[in-house]
Amino acid sequence: MINIPIENPLNKCKSAVEKELTIFFNKKLAESEKISPESKQIVELLKDYSLRGGKRIRAALVYYGYKCFSNKNIKEIIKASAAMELIQSYLLVHDDIIDRDDLRRNGPTIHKSYKDIFKKIYPSSDSVHLGNSMAILAGDLASSFANELINDIDIKEKYKAKASKKMNKVVKTVIFGELLDIISALRPVTKIEIEKIHRFKTASYTIEGPLHIGALLAGAKNKDLKVLSGYAVPLGEAFQLQDDILGLYGNEKQLGKPIGSDLREGKYTLLILKALEKATKLQKEKIKKALGSQKLTKKQLDGIRKIVKQTGSLKYSQYLVQKLVSQSKKSIKGSRFNKEAKQFLLELADYMLKREY
Amino acid sequence: MINIPIENPLNKCKSAVEKELTIFFNKKLAESEKISPESKQIVELLKDYSLRGGKRIRAALVYYGYKCFSNKNIKEIIKASAAMELIQSYLLVHDDIIDRDDLRRNGPTIHKSYKDIFKKIYPSSDSVHLGNSMAILAGDLASSFANELINDIDIKEKYKAKASKKMNKVVKTVIFGELLDIISALRPVTKIEIEKIHRFKTASYTIEGPLHIGALLAGAKNKDLKVLSGYAVPLGEAFQLQDDILGLYGNEKQLGKPIGSDLREGKYTLLILKALEKATKLQKEKIKKALGSQKLTKKQLDGIRKIVKQTGSLKYSQYLVQKLVSQSKKSIKGSRFNKEAKQFLLELADYMLKREY
Repeated sequence: MINIPIENPLNKCKSAVEKELTIFFNKKLAESEKISPESKQIVELLKDYSLRGGKRIRAALVYYGYKCFSNKNIKEIIKASAAMELIQSYLLVHDDIIDRDDLRRNGPTIHKSYKDIFKKIYPSSDSVHLGNSMAILAGDLASSFANELINDIDIKEKYKAKASKKMNKVVKTVIFGELLDIISALRPVTKIEIEKIHRFKTASYTIEGPLHIGALLAGAKNKDLKVLSGYAVPLGEAFQLQDDILGLYGNEKQLGKPIGSDLREGKYTLLILKALEKATKLQKEKIKKALGSQKLTKKQLDGIRKIVKQTGSLKYSQYLVQKLVSQSKKSIKGSRFNKEAKQFLLELADYMLKREY
Repeated sequence: MINIPIENPLNKCKSAVEKELTIFFNKKLAESEKISPESKQIVELLKDYSLRGGKRIRAALVYYGYKCFSNKNIKEIIKASAAMELIQSYLLVHDDIIDRDDLRRNGPTIHKSYKDIFKKIYPSSDSVHLGNSMAILAGDLASSFANELINDIDIKEKYKAKASKKMNKVVKTVIFGELLDIISALRPVTKIEIEKIHRFKTASYTIEGPLHIGALLAGAKNKDLKVLSGYAVPLGEAFQLQDDILGLYGNEKQLGKPIGSDLREGKYTLLILKALEKATKLQKEKIKKALGSQKLTKKQLDGIRKIVKQTGSLKYSQYLVQKLVSQSKKSIKGSRFNKEAKQFLLELADYMLKREY
């Protein structure tokens, strides 16, 4: 296969958002330095964590959600995009503790960094617990940073209030999604429950929420939001399915996180659920054995990959992704959105089919 | 000593706030029930945790901070008071994980409840980690609930935006206070750092912040806020000192949490710092041995109590409380605040001297 570089539409506003985040964090570093060395350190760790990677998909969607309806205040809207990325840091930092992941965006997670720091400075301390404790606070801090950033943007108070409400609602929904996600590693979940996890964690939080937040900051009406939802909900589902596929067949280095972690955590993705439906007795046993196994071997993982292919489950998910992406694109083709914004949304949907991380 | 019942000025708006919290939680229960049984369960645990106790001092200060300047929208301001209590649940739930406290407000903490639940339903699971994980989410959920409640109050958008900003700033400050608090159990801290912890965790978060939030919702100006700060800052310090005293000499049942936990966690309170200054070599050794000892015995605790008395450290703290309370009262005596609100603030300051929990 020839490796053709894929034009990533997300790159368009990535650097602007990262510049905004850098400015914000530098201000916070100067503030926190006055409190104590440890206060500066927590901000430094958050800065590094927030800036060392990430697709910035939510940031881009806030930006283009706004652009669909307005061309004013472009400088201010980038701040809202940056705030969305801080919300992402907040949720990820807590998620990392919950999932016990030591690696994120090709670097150590916050609780892991702290664990190593404490082990070195205070060898007699319980560095695991302290690491988790500091990461709880780091997540909480990121949440307050996100609020600060969005509170301070210079946009009509009325629009800002609506956007803030939406942001809070999206966060509430994703928390319920997280909860279901934890539960899904403890008891078998239904297809409906898996769909709920996807809707809450991805469709709502990753695609629809950011688009709505941007649109609301531009003063969009309810009917505008509905059109955006027609685009966002299927795309969100496609995004999640693609995530599951990459989580099993992707490249660890490109993804920045371990392959097979869903399996190790015992999570029933659609890939697994569908494979179980069509699997032979022996294949079923192999899957059940792998699910939730903290000591999953490379060989076992390869075996599961094979089964998901052989049962047609991979093909099925890939087919669904195609179908959802075209449904998503169709829903905005007739809209009167700003041309550049519409172009971005269509390109993003196509990119979803080809992305490798 | 004769036990004279003390009139608690906080009781005045306690029941109104708790009624508001009950209404809010019942709505959230109905919403979450539709998602999954576990979603309802987390809201139930948060409801119980938030309603089974608490002084409601922050709620009362939001209420009277508002009343200082306005008599309109009393029904709406109670919602802001309730939101402040939800912020308190958010921070306490995370704090409980960090401090590994199983008891709060005479009941199990959230992570403890979950640990017990998981141990029973999924005996092979890591119930400690799962309990902590669910409690992280429960705290995050409480934070989004607080935002939801304050976002929905029917008060001028401009005032609400200012109050929200303040609330967020107060939360940010208390997180830095928490951080210093954790650090204070790891390395010896200076008197200045202890004062910072008190200022961030108590003066700002417990007294000044809520008062300012209420005042801002009434459209108060900067100069009004300054007068309130003159009252709040010394009272906050007094409150913290009294907390430290009760934490060593109080009644476990009234307090709803274990006596001596600061010592067990190795925290240098002013009581301990002052005692160390005046202690004999033997007394110093006893204190150092007790600090951070997870297995602190009843006898050891009694010994520390004696030393804090003998060195004059207890008297010194009690003297400071007196001084700070009178400074606090003096600062608002000449103000033009609403009569009822002023009366409350003066009574609250007096109550600070006498409170037993």
